Amino acid sequence: MATQSNEYPTKAWGATAPDSGIGPMEILRRGLRHDDVLIDISHCGICHSDLHTARNDWGRTTYPIVPGHEIVGTVRAVGEAVTRHKVGDRVAIGCLVDSCMECRHCTTDLEQYCLDGGATGTYNSKDRRDGSPTFGGYSDKIVCREEFVLKVPDALPMAEAAPLLCAGITTYSPLRTWKVGPGSKVAVAGLGGLGHMGVKLAAAMGAEVTVLSRSESKREDAERLGAHAFLNTSDRAAMKARSGYFDMVLNTIPVRHDITPYLHLLRVDGVQVLVGVIEMLPEMHSGILLGRKVLTGSGIGGLAQTQEMLDFCAEHGIVPEIEIIPMQEVNRAYDRMEASDVKYRFVIDMESLKEDQEIWSG
Amino acid sequence: MATQSNEYPTKAWGATAPDSGIGPMEILRRGLRHDDVLIDISHCGICHSDLHTARNDWGRTTYPIVPGHEIVGTVRAVGEAVTRHKVGDRVAIGCLVDSCMECRHCTTDLEQYCLDGGATGTYNSKDRRDGSPTFGGYSDKIVCREEFVLKVPDALPMAEAAPLLCAGITTYSPLRTWKVGPGSKVAVAGLGGLGHMGVKLAAAMGAEVTVLSRSESKREDAERLGAHAFLNTSDRAAMKARSGYFDMVLNTIPVRHDITPYLHLLRVDGVQVLVGVIEMLPEMHSGILLGRKVLTGSGIGGLAQTQEMLDFCAEHGIVPEIEIIPMQEVNRAYDRMEASDVKYRFVIDMESLKEDQEIWSG
Repeated sequence: MATQSNEYPTKAWGATAPDSGIGPMEILRRGLRHDDVLIDISHCGICHSDLHTARNDWGRTTYPIVPGHEIVGTVRAVGEAVTRHKVGDRVAIGCLVDSCMECRHCTTDLEQYCLDGGATGTYNSKDRRDGSPTFGGYSDKIVCREEFVLKVPDALPMAEAAPLLCAGITTYSPLRTWKVGPGSKVAVAGLGGLGHMGVKLAAAMGAEVTVLSRSESKREDAERLGAHAFLNTSDRAAMKARSGYFDMVLNTIPVRHDITPYLHLLRVDGVQVLVGVIEMLPEMHSGILLGRKVLTGSGIGGLAQTQEMLDFCAEHGIVPEIEIIPMQEVNRAYDRMEASDVKYRFVIDMESLKEDQEIWSG
Repeated sequence: MATQSNEYPTKAWGATAPDSGIGPMEILRRGLRHDDVLIDISHCGICHSDLHTARNDWGRTTYPIVPGHEIVGTVRAVGEAVTRHKVGDRVAIGCLVDSCMECRHCTTDLEQYCLDGGATGTYNSKDRRDGSPTFGGYSDKIVCREEFVLKVPDALPMAEAAPLLCAGITTYSPLRTWKVGPGSKVAVAGLGGLGHMGVKLAAAMGAEVTVLSRSESKREDAERLGAHAFLNTSDRAAMKARSGYFDMVLNTIPVRHDITPYLHLLRVDGVQVLVGVIEMLPEMHSGILLGRKVLTGSGIGGLAQTQEMLDFCAEHGIVPEIEIIPMQEVNRAYDRMEASDVKYRFVIDMESLKEDQEIWSG
């Protein structure tokens, strides 16, 4: 591969086609611009979006694709104008690596809704300055504009911090938007990567947390994670008894489903927030908007709120439940995610890239 | 008709079957209970719900039905325990005539969401104490529990006050729920009975008001009613220019339609409130919950807020635009409503009942 002298050859795993699976590839990270940070990635969480993007399920993938937007690591070098980070800092990158920083959203901590063409995604996007493709965290290093690099508090272990960058902020943000606090009654639908963080975060904010599930098998886990109650959604009498009860239903279910029963659980002015499959249309049935219920969606959060979330987790000792895997098991991890066989988030240990030395020497 | 000695024979117009149209009938109003008020009705507004209920469009009508829930009049007599009203007072009744007054909604000014079987509707409902059918305001008098009788401020003409009891409160309530005030950018979709009140109320609250319509024919009226701008929803360029602009879309359109274009008009955290056809499902297309938009519905309001709305209208000189008709024209008025041939609300003058003397003497 031809490289410019200041580019960084980088070990990565990615997909070359919808059916290629994830395999090793070498990519180039750009040489440092004045405001760039070079990060040695230690861990990267696996998000459902990674899988869908790698397989082009949403029809928007440009190959080759290197997934990964739950990235943690250590600063190895900084551009000459960088002031926020220094070599050796524990840092993180989430779903965004750039935005215009000038529009009314970017200037009000809503970079994720940048009005100038949208924020630049950590992967499957294009660099705003040179148009090159962005590659994600399934790799040993990354270069990123300093403003989009977050600080990992010392109290957070690196591996556990990784899923906070997407699963954490995606659940944290609507809890803050809708002012969940002591006394709030929050129901969490779906107990996966997002849902289990929703339980922990809402409980840490002082809410009374109930896990909603069709399956009794989740009851024990719900309690272990800090939920105060479990509501089996197949139990019609139990559901009826909680009609009009909740201030919020945090709906993390990642497949199309009927959201009507959850609307019935809300009090007047209660809010159902869809964070699982916000691009797909929910099923709704007659009468759902009677009773002054609120339906909304939310995805990730801005930079300031993401940092706030990391600090909140450090302060409250909140970390996701993870299963650390080597990169070589990523395809199997995707299969297991699809089978809901993970409690609750896979995190790739980037040390594993060193084991594949023969690949990179090719 | 056999009457108990204390009952009030009452001239009314109502329907006896889905296809009967509205015609004269005599009904009995109950003798005064200790907490009842007898009201001589001077005017009653015509709401779309009247038409749908009279024709059993919603499959829930019990015949005979006397419609009308935008009722104004003068107190003629009061029960022995009544303290809120006295003979001669200018009063009004809206969509509710009773509720349990004890549940957590009734005790927090949300009687419209009474948890004990729902509030008692002004018509097509059953009296909570004796189970008799409730009959609405297309009649010369009505008996109602004093708590559900509102005061009409002196500054409001009686005829014009009538539509406030449903069209007024239905638009006023969500404007308050979502804290519309000076600087708010409010778009009103649909310029009928509800929509034209939405324009006036939002403008009086200090909002910048834009009327949304497919038809240029509404532009002049929009401005006359106090709107600051008009947005032709058929004009794609104009719609795009207002993408992400509004804090609220007050959607008063009374037929099933695609609400997606209105969601695009909202800023992040902006709210589309459906007040027109809240029982029917809106059409939505992919992606509507991205960008953290909010969808909700709202119907009427509680007693305290309804009184607040009447006082607000009196203070700000806000009255609906009405066309006063005699009762004998109610069927033609229904036809004209369906053809959107009314600016903006029909109000029945109950004096007209006296013209039919030969009917009542039968």
